[in-house]
Amino acid sequence: MTTYEKNFTTAEYQRRIVKTRRAMDAAGLDAIVICDPSNMSWLTGYDGWSFYVYQGVVLTMEGEPVWWGRAMDALGARRTVFMENDDNIRGYDDTFVQNTEKHPMEELARLLCEFGLEKAKIGVEMDNYYYSATAHLKLLEGLPDAKVTDCSGLVNWQRAVKSEREIEYMQRAARIVEAMHETIREMAEPGMRKNDLIAEIYATGIRGADGYWGDYPAIVPMAPSGLDATAPHLTWDDRPMEVNEATFFEIAGAHRRYQCPQSRTLFLGEVPAKYRKAEKAVLNAIEAGLAQAKPGNQAQDIANAFNATLNKAGFEKDSRCGYAIGISYPPDWGERTISFRRGDTTILEPGMTFHFMPALWLDDGGLEITEPILITEDGHECFCNTPREIWVKK
Amino acid sequence: MTTYEKNFTTAEYQRRIVKTRRAMDAAGLDAIVICDPSNMSWLTGYDGWSFYVYQGVVLTMEGEPVWWGRAMDALGARRTVFMENDDNIRGYDDTFVQNTEKHPMEELARLLCEFGLEKAKIGVEMDNYYYSATAHLKLLEGLPDAKVTDCSGLVNWQRAVKSEREIEYMQRAARIVEAMHETIREMAEPGMRKNDLIAEIYATGIRGADGYWGDYPAIVPMAPSGLDATAPHLTWDDRPMEVNEATFFEIAGAHRRYQCPQSRTLFLGEVPAKYRKAEKAVLNAIEAGLAQAKPGNQAQDIANAFNATLNKAGFEKDSRCGYAIGISYPPDWGERTISFRRGDTTILEPGMTFHFMPALWLDDGGLEITEPILITEDGHECFCNTPREIWVKK
Repeated sequence: MTTYEKNFTTAEYQRRIVKTRRAMDAAGLDAIVICDPSNMSWLTGYDGWSFYVYQGVVLTMEGEPVWWGRAMDALGARRTVFMENDDNIRGYDDTFVQNTEKHPMEELARLLCEFGLEKAKIGVEMDNYYYSATAHLKLLEGLPDAKVTDCSGLVNWQRAVKSEREIEYMQRAARIVEAMHETIREMAEPGMRKNDLIAEIYATGIRGADGYWGDYPAIVPMAPSGLDATAPHLTWDDRPMEVNEATFFEIAGAHRRYQCPQSRTLFLGEVPAKYRKAEKAVLNAIEAGLAQAKPGNQAQDIANAFNATLNKAGFEKDSRCGYAIGISYPPDWGERTISFRRGDTTILEPGMTFHFMPALWLDDGGLEITEPILITEDGHECFCNTPREIWVKK
Repeated sequence: MTTYEKNFTTAEYQRRIVKTRRAMDAAGLDAIVICDPSNMSWLTGYDGWSFYVYQGVVLTMEGEPVWWGRAMDALGARRTVFMENDDNIRGYDDTFVQNTEKHPMEELARLLCEFGLEKAKIGVEMDNYYYSATAHLKLLEGLPDAKVTDCSGLVNWQRAVKSEREIEYMQRAARIVEAMHETIREMAEPGMRKNDLIAEIYATGIRGADGYWGDYPAIVPMAPSGLDATAPHLTWDDRPMEVNEATFFEIAGAHRRYQCPQSRTLFLGEVPAKYRKAEKAVLNAIEAGLAQAKPGNQAQDIANAFNATLNKAGFEKDSRCGYAIGISYPPDWGERTISFRRGDTTILEPGMTFHFMPALWLDDGGLEITEPILITEDGHECFCNTPREIWVKK
């Protein structure tokens, strides 16, 4: 985004910080260094495609967070974060960028010392895309007397229950993904180059829906056909769509970085009995899973109900069938906290949001019919009204 | 991509492996574990948006590489890598995905032991998005007798000089980014919502050009206007384009994962004298830089000529003005090796490809006029024919 309109009030960011400090306190931490761009944005509002260089947010137990990153991106921070004091935005020299002679984490260590944290207990997100093995070693070298420990997921977990405003953004993203699926239903036809269809899906997603603009999804459209659809994460090329082939579309609408993923499967031609059988099994299993999607239940209850129903119909799915969603940056639109799978005993709460993702990969193609959901006071709501079935065009 | 048509011949992958093994030998390594998706793809052909979970390519001094990743993605590997033997594709159980109880790197350590590497010298890409601090610790725990060392950049450097086929893909991507800029020139106008323009840019880029399909660029379009354009990495929202405002468009065409980035600046209305002065300075400095873009010169020669010319005109740019480009996955379309900046003494060779990126950020906006270039036998070629000037629409 730009500076046109802030995503959240300062009060909302402050509530998030209070929540986060409670978790820091429980973990015995004096400070955290947050390099996950989704967590950085959630804590401060920072938004920019600058996460290909090292950057972070430093939060101690007092005062406002500090944004730290490349000097040229400090300008983007000034325009997007809620903190108004320039001291809370700290840039490092460009010569540290992708330079084998020196490392930005040396600068961050100096900054943490300047903040009096040289002997502090500092949490870092060790299991994150944007905090590499070298980053960790360089930070440790610069902070020989600090106690640096892992706080992966600490902020992610605070994000699990969404605010009203966050849910509103996800509802807007839901309208957008509905429109994207509508575009697929309208335009896909035999002989159409796959990339031409993807171009239309993208354009619809970014134009937005209901008057709300589309942001970039954290994952590009995945849209494999036929045998390619036995694999879950292939993207596209220019092979024309063919009769008697299934294509699944795993796509998301996005608004102000909030993501609403939803998948559907399109069949061009007569749907074979095998796919109809799989569809019926998946739809029944979705119903069984959704019946468990209510406050007080555990995340695994949804997976267990889903899997039991699926197995009864003679199908098996050995991967998780859902995960938490919300604000996100590439490469993942999940929150990397709660999963719908056996053993995940997280208690569902109102305001939690998930992608219930009961995809089934068959030996000759894929079937994806998925639902983004919101846990409500007395059950759940599906974010989207997209028709829940295999779509057929002849 | 899908399996429609392989990107490169097996012979080309084998040449790359020979090159890489020479570097491994020089570094005294028995094996490398490559988690960078661009490097994985360059070595094996693997293509899929699966890099949000742990995966890698293992290369020893003998035999073909081994793709390792999530079991469901092994299917995508089978469909995209050049290795034909199923033993060279190894998947791990889905319960390892984003699970705090266990880590995929435990599995990788077991696999390396199975390969007899428990006491080997193993290089890992420690300074990479897709190899976290935790990943490193878990791998070390599982390989207590191995000598695990940093090989960040080892494969990236082998990619610097492009093959004919790679250059061909970048030329196709160049046609695509030209078409994207053409769309901007045609469609941008005062009052147009920025996201509507971005939708058109995306659609053009993915439809492709010259009959070649568009792949996803490794970075989304950056297109800030006015004061937002003082910051380099803001994306977009729905603020309408305004008269008397400059907007820069930092975008890339992509084909089969090869990237051709190019930026241009559009002014709606009468261009202020200050911008004309900056334009003149940048264009002269680009000429001065390009004059140094030839085999035998150093990377810094381009930067020094560019900066000296810019300074004479009263402008300064303290960040690097270019970087190597080629195959790429998010979050960066650079190769993270050679930079055009003082101190980079890399000798330019025919077949090297760069984004010469002399962006200038002023106090009230940004000016980006950039050129992707190929070093040739006797100088250089610009990949694109996009008009090199501030574009004006009134």
